[in-house]
Amino acid sequence: MSSFKLDRVLEADSMLVSKLGLCQLRLMNDSRWPWLLLIPQRPEAEEIYHLTPLDQTLLTFETCETARALKQVTGCAKINVAALGNQVRQLHFHVIARRTDDAAWPKPVWGVGTAIPYDRGKADGLKAAIVDAL
Amino acid sequence: MSSFKLDRVLEADSMLVSKLGLCQLRLMNDSRWPWLLLIPQRPEAEEIYHLTPLDQTLLTFETCETARALKQVTGCAKINVAALGNQVRQLHFHVIARRTDDAAWPKPVWGVGTAIPYDRGKADGLKAAIVDAL
Repeated sequence: MSSFKLDRVLEADSMLVSKLGLCQLRLMNDSRWPWLLLIPQRPEAEEIYHLTPLDQTLLTFETCETARALKQVTGCAKINVAALGNQVRQLHFHVIARRTDDAAWPKPVWGVGTAIPYDRGKADGLKAAIVDAL
Repeated sequence: MSSFKLDRVLEADSMLVSKLGLCQLRLMNDSRWPWLLLIPQRPEAEEIYHLTPLDQTLLTFETCETARALKQVTGCAKINVAALGNQVRQLHFHVIARRTDDAAWPKPVWGVGTAIPYDRGKADGLKAAIVDAL
């Protein structure tokens, strides 16, 4: 059995927030919208149905808890949840806080403009608030 | 307790494929890409964490089975799964078959161009194939 190794693009674009039971929870380094990633730590999973039923249930639990925490921390209008994987095949879920005045609303955020990296302190504050809310 | 009523926009944009344990499974009337919707038949649910834990598990099961069936029927390169809800608030999951030569690849399909409705026979054939594969 091969061991899990985080995709290099996901690793470069995001910062570790916490390791949950199944997933790595990471913060995308783009301050335009609070944008989390959940990456199941299972090698070779590319589609949700590649996970075992138990892992699917864990993923759902962690996605719901992450979405609820992100809503609580940000007070956003809507949470967007998605697994696309057209560019990075390693299975990963986006959990994104959307405001009605953000730069892409009401369209999706993928491919819109250029990421604006966080100031270190602001990212640390957001990561800590998410962990507290979980 | 109020009863479930399908959102009018979702109803107008899609065709019923089947009623599953939790969700209505529907086919978006856009022949550019095989695009299914799963709508949990629960009134007032807008975010996944509004569902009970049992319903969350059912939704995950139905999403995985739908994704697997869509992959089998279309032989697509990638399945995209998402719950956005920025425009229609009733909770609904998109399950979309993507080809590397489709009109939006590798970007998401939302907001791209204009829907091309199916010929009646082609939609019926796709719906029947999905039901067979489930």
